[in-house]
Amino acid sequence: MVAPLRVGLAGLGTVGAAVIDLIARERAALTARCGRAVEVTAVTARSKAKKRAIDVKKLKWVRDPVALATDPDIDVFVELIGGAGDPAKSAIEAALKAGKSVVTANKALLAKHGLALAALAEKHQAALNFEAAVAGAIPVVKTLREGLAGNAFARISGILNGTCNYILTRMEREKLSFADCLADAQKLGYAEADPSFDVDGHDTAQKLAILASLAFGIKVDESAVFVEGISSIAPEDLEAADELGYRVKLLGVAVRTEKGIEQRVHPTMVPKDSAIAQVMGVTNAVSIDAEGFAPVTLVGPGAGGNATASAVVADIGDIARGVRAAPFGRPCAKLTASRQAPMQRHEGGYYIRLAAVDRPGTFAAIARLLADEKISLESIMQRHRGARPHGGDDPKSPDAPAPVILITYATSEDAVRRALKAIRKQGVIADDPQVIRIEKN
Amino acid sequence: MVAPLRVGLAGLGTVGAAVIDLIARERAALTARCGRAVEVTAVTARSKAKKRAIDVKKLKWVRDPVALATDPDIDVFVELIGGAGDPAKSAIEAALKAGKSVVTANKALLAKHGLALAALAEKHQAALNFEAAVAGAIPVVKTLREGLAGNAFARISGILNGTCNYILTRMEREKLSFADCLADAQKLGYAEADPSFDVDGHDTAQKLAILASLAFGIKVDESAVFVEGISSIAPEDLEAADELGYRVKLLGVAVRTEKGIEQRVHPTMVPKDSAIAQVMGVTNAVSIDAEGFAPVTLVGPGAGGNATASAVVADIGDIARGVRAAPFGRPCAKLTASRQAPMQRHEGGYYIRLAAVDRPGTFAAIARLLADEKISLESIMQRHRGARPHGGDDPKSPDAPAPVILITYATSEDAVRRALKAIRKQGVIADDPQVIRIEKN
Repeated sequence: MVAPLRVGLAGLGTVGAAVIDLIARERAALTARCGRAVEVTAVTARSKAKKRAIDVKKLKWVRDPVALATDPDIDVFVELIGGAGDPAKSAIEAALKAGKSVVTANKALLAKHGLALAALAEKHQAALNFEAAVAGAIPVVKTLREGLAGNAFARISGILNGTCNYILTRMEREKLSFADCLADAQKLGYAEADPSFDVDGHDTAQKLAILASLAFGIKVDESAVFVEGISSIAPEDLEAADELGYRVKLLGVAVRTEKGIEQRVHPTMVPKDSAIAQVMGVTNAVSIDAEGFAPVTLVGPGAGGNATASAVVADIGDIARGVRAAPFGRPCAKLTASRQAPMQRHEGGYYIRLAAVDRPGTFAAIARLLADEKISLESIMQRHRGARPHGGDDPKSPDAPAPVILITYATSEDAVRRALKAIRKQGVIADDPQVIRIEKN
Repeated sequence: MVAPLRVGLAGLGTVGAAVIDLIARERAALTARCGRAVEVTAVTARSKAKKRAIDVKKLKWVRDPVALATDPDIDVFVELIGGAGDPAKSAIEAALKAGKSVVTANKALLAKHGLALAALAEKHQAALNFEAAVAGAIPVVKTLREGLAGNAFARISGILNGTCNYILTRMEREKLSFADCLADAQKLGYAEADPSFDVDGHDTAQKLAILASLAFGIKVDESAVFVEGISSIAPEDLEAADELGYRVKLLGVAVRTEKGIEQRVHPTMVPKDSAIAQVMGVTNAVSIDAEGFAPVTLVGPGAGGNATASAVVADIGDIARGVRAAPFGRPCAKLTASRQAPMQRHEGGYYIRLAAVDRPGTFAAIARLLADEKISLESIMQRHRGARPHGGDDPKSPDAPAPVILITYATSEDAVRRALKAIRKQGVIADDPQVIRIEKN
């Protein structure tokens, strides 16, 4: 019988408690599956005195994460502290340098320092597993690293932030404003007090950078991701999307183009009948386009104690079974610097909503300025002035700008930006234009 | 540098050719991902002379699968012959006995002899990988074996046969009969000349038995699966399902109940807004219900050369990286005989379509016989006599039986069968009743 795998766990919040609970509950099955027992033997957290649902009295309490990481009584260090800096970073480094394998759910740290940490893991022949860092219980890291490892990838896209998808789902279903939904999400605990990290797209960007590295063999680099959040999305955009056969989702997309790997996070119109459009509420989804066959889509809970613990324990299980995969799927020396495709050169369809001033020649001017940039229109929706988004008319106000909604054929980001700048300069629109990119698949 | 992993491949059909092609095309990436090169070095197939898209001249040709399996020039034996018997079985046995790891796509063989083969693999410390046996490119075996390995499972369900889903999708969309759709599917190459293995549910049952073993730690046993195919499904069933908010899918379901593990394959009504209901055409999907969080659903191509090759090459990659997992997730000694929940004791909702004879008291008799079995009705749809399924009325024929559609609340299979037997005996229905089980999730 192989000796038990001894786990040291730093961070005893919801996820940490769920990990301890799951390992205890599934002890027999885990032992059978791993060929050896898995035991949490030592822990640390900010406060030892804090009241917790789990009983930590039987566990060795270590004074701080770095001390735990190098404790001789543990084989694996599980980091559930979070944050791109210390103590998470120094503790993981200490564990790896001591030759101990690490399991972490820390997307921020990986998106920023993932490459250096992977190099350290490689040097000391330790595992660095992070299934829980992206999309909760969904085994997307394993799928890219192992399950689809034989393939070249064309595209990865996903709904990677439950808060944003929850807000967009409720906005769509209940015709609420972004601000109202956000306030409600905060009340219900689905959004943080400071929601900007989620709603501005940064959380999605970190996760996307990790997936892009795994899929395309590029160095993980959060700063290479173009990011746009969902706060500008208005109910009238969702209503127009619905009429046009689309839904709006905050997508992270990494795609191989002729100009390099494009990594971008932005509100996206996706066809209503696509798999990704069916994903509602806090659920996450990742669609993986390998060359040569139809996409594989993984859907499931992207957050929550139990879902995240599932990923953490699976990662621990792999270490128990002796599995060592390169953290980002290939040796660090084989990871390339991403030839970053600049966002200005992104090509695709666009949804554009303009508040056109009510003057003769307005539409002619708009049409001409778009044509100047060789932008062709797939459809045009001109609503009568003062149309209210949810049916029913305002008393006609003759001076109110008329919403004009345009769907373009594939064009470039550059062309759209130049055209809109020219339109604004012409004084034919009353407000900043709304632009939402379209993905057909 | 570790020596290359030498692959011997038996069976050079669509999948075999795609495997050779993929390994050649992704040579550099595979080497980086696996830490060593992967090379197909020897092959065998029924005919050496047959014209093929791939060039086998550079490969060692071995006279038969068993000789290839024990060839000293190979490290891994890839079996793509198919069939539950020889030569596939004896070749895999020979490879394992020689301590060579095996990769196979052979669901029939695994469903029948999986346990014995797993024991052989265990004894000789060889891997037995079969990602390609279930759901093509979807990494569901890996997900159950590793990605969600820390969890107890409540339920696995899936659309595991592309042919059936293709037929049901077209029947629903185009209001065609089963026979017409099947003939078309055969013309298009989506169904075999002898389609019974697919449409009668046996293919799904084999795959389900494999997944159930992985999820529940039971001995794989195809004969424990209750099987019912899709040939009795009529357009009027799909139309009624649509009206009632359901779609009909051929599902494989393995679920933990108080009476044991229930394994069943049958046409199933699933709510239209469920993830599984969105899966159309030849696409496969598996939904995995682990205890403690929302289901994880994997969707993707379940067949085809490239999709299947993706799974085969990923399995080879795991072997190249030195990963050894127990074939069914646990050592054979830990796999339990499934306490099989008998189908008669299945509990759930039912859709029942009756051709009620037009006589006073018919409905009262039906209602009473259902009540005798304590079956409560959630809804009743009585169509007027001679109603045509697709709108428009036949000239009323006063003697034609009137279709009555009943949706029951949760009841037992036993109760339904007894009630229908009594109803038939009463002579108040003109034809065999149609029964479709309902799954709410």
